[in-house]
Amino acid sequence: MTRTPPIVLLTDFGLRDPYVGMMKGVLLSRAPGVPVVDLCHEVAPQRVSAAAFFLAASAPFFPENSLFVSVVDPGVGSGRAVLWARSRRASYLAPDNGTLDALSGRDRPLEFRRVTNRELFLPSVSRTFHGRDLFAPVAAALASGLDPARLGPKVRPPRRLAKGPLRGVLHVDHFGNCVTTLKAAQVGKGRGVWVGGLRVGPLKETYASVPPGKALALVGSYGLVELSVRDGNFAAQYRIQPGDPVHVR
Amino acid sequence: MTRTPPIVLLTDFGLRDPYVGMMKGVLLSRAPGVPVVDLCHEVAPQRVSAAAFFLAASAPFFPENSLFVSVVDPGVGSGRAVLWARSRRASYLAPDNGTLDALSGRDRPLEFRRVTNRELFLPSVSRTFHGRDLFAPVAAALASGLDPARLGPKVRPPRRLAKGPLRGVLHVDHFGNCVTTLKAAQVGKGRGVWVGGLRVGPLKETYASVPPGKALALVGSYGLVELSVRDGNFAAQYRIQPGDPVHVR
Amino acid sequence: MTRTPPIVLLTDFGLRDPYVGMMKGVLLSRAPGVPVVDLCHEVAPQRVSAAAFFLAASAPFFPENSLFVSVVDPGVGSGRAVLWARSRRASYLAPDNGTLDALSGRDRPLEFRRVTNRELFLPSVSRTFHGRDLFAPVAAALASGLDPARLGPKVRPPRRLAKGPLRGVLHVDHFGNCVTTLKAAQVGKGRGVWVGGLRVGPLKETYASVPPGKALALVGSYGLVELSVRDGNFAAQYRIQPGDPVHVR
Repeated sequence: MTRTPPIVLLTDFGLRDPYVGMMKGVLLSRAPGVPVVDLCHEVAPQRVSAAAFFLAASAPFFPENSLFVSVVDPGVGSGRAVLWARSRRASYLAPDNGTLDALSGRDRPLEFRRVTNRELFLPSVSRTFHGRDLFAPVAAALASGLDPARLGPKVRPPRRLAKGPLRGVLHVDHFGNCVTTLKAAQVGKGRGVWVGGLRVGPLKETYASVPPGKALALVGSYGLVELSVRDGNFAAQYRIQPGDPVHVR
Repeated sequence: MTRTPPIVLLTDFGLRDPYVGMMKGVLLSRAPGVPVVDLCHEVAPQRVSAAAFFLAASAPFFPENSLFVSVVDPGVGSGRAVLWARSRRASYLAPDNGTLDALSGRDRPLEFRRVTNRELFLPSVSRTFHGRDLFAPVAAALASGLDPARLGPKVRPPRRLAKGPLRGVLHVDHFGNCVTTLKAAQVGKGRGVWVGGLRVGPLKETYASVPPGKALALVGSYGLVELSVRDGNFAAQYRIQPGDPVHVR
Repeated sequence: MTRTPPIVLLTDFGLRDPYVGMMKGVLLSRAPGVPVVDLCHEVAPQRVSAAAFFLAASAPFFPENSLFVSVVDPGVGSGRAVLWARSRRASYLAPDNGTLDALSGRDRPLEFRRVTNRELFLPSVSRTFHGRDLFAPVAAALASGLDPARLGPKVRPPRRLAKGPLRGVLHVDHFGNCVTTLKAAQVGKGRGVWVGGLRVGPLKETYASVPPGKALALVGSYGLVELSVRDGNFAAQYRIQPGDPVHVR
């Protein structure tokens, strides 16, 4: 069995186009035998904060020495930098736009380089698709043993994007579950979560704690408070969207 | 060439979230080198009957000794059991909710265990995402050679969910083809299928038997009667949904 | 590291159904160890021209000796032929419907065979799903070393589908970018692109050349002129669809 660590892809490219497939073509061409895994390709277009959230929530479940390649990149073609970073467990390639800000614990990057070595890119680099022309060949080179020192100069950790005091809906998932920014301790016992004029609470242990069709709040798989309808779709039923504010009372 | 049998994933998680990616992270971490294949992740949320149908229809096309992991699991976090099962050809992990009911022939499970050994799960098991915290690590352990006896106690075959005498639309596919519960022999020669006030029939051999834009009934790739529009979308054109009744006349 | 060239899948099957998964089951059963890569499965149903465009644009990024299996196949079950073809770099399986017409340069097929050897197909071939019953087992046989001479007789290159003088929108991608048939030289300096009553131009270098929310035209990653809104969705904002005409002035 191969134990080569995987290249893990996170993008907002969607699956309607051959964009992800092309990236895999480049990876297969230049790093044959390295496993390539899809983390998610349906990040909402250009929503960097969602990519940062997905990456931080998912990284701990991947093998040591995984290489995460995240391309949610509204600044593609502008002067924005591309970063390589390394934590105690893994390494990362991403635009310098805040994608790496939410990583924490053993996944938090400690060492950063700016990727500037054009010899590693495809011979022709488009202005709009650095996933294929820059990120994929650089990832393939790293997975094939390239010394990171050859990527470009060390840089200081990028300034983390300012985070407001937002308490709100961080993400609406495929089931309509609304993941909030709240941790269980912020809700506590006996209190509930207000969203969109509705009060949900107190926290339940599991979906089965309420009858089918009823709303509930519980600690979900991200370790955050989620608002759900048992066997239903909370976001659709109560018209909740990412960014909607939540309150605890 | 590796001949390691694959782990085959079937869920209703969709692809908007990193849920499937996280499961793969756990599988890669604990069973590196085992091929992981996506059967489908767009089962309609919590529709166990669709998962059962997809699984039974697909299992015969996979290699001997494949391990199917099906997580369409409205009862997650409740007391519902998790089952491991083995047929003459393959093995299965699924919630005890009817997912395995439609498997037949050499794919029909003959031996069942209840998965109770918490040592096999992730150290922290969420209440909402057993795909990542329970199914993935147990699948990885099995694919790495774990003796199934260590999963938990043998149990009797679960009672099959009662099936009504439904004749109807079992599934609407991506092309708008309406897969019915009918076999060719139930329609026979010269008769047609009524659905939503429309009569379609008699059975044709192939799409090309009618002009583009015309409706037809034929035996589809599931071995069941399907209603289609050549080069069109039957379900959209006639507003048909899963569960709609069909009649033969 | 394995260097087995991959089987690359391109279909209009979508991901709601287990169709792609079944194809992979057949490939895994008959060619274990051969990497299988998804190029795209969301080609608009039965739109062969889109498949041809995706295939031609993507093939150069895949390894030498890749086997591309393209199944956008409105004629399935009719008398349409299935073709195998080989270029200097790669080989192809596709219905004889124009899918291979856009391949060019080193990817352009030079040798063609009609696939007629039924011994290579699954024992039972449905009338509606040749992806599973014909293309997958034939691809597995080729990837396992089958001499292409055993597929069926050599045939002359198929007549290319007539291409009108269309200048228009070739494809709308996931981000709402409208890929046109125009090359940069056809637009030139100082001129703009008219579409849907709107003039966009002259060509910019990158998205960052205009403020967020503004429309622009630039050469995209296909090497063709694309119409975009920075951080927005051109197609949705201006109600543009594939096939809409464009003019240069």
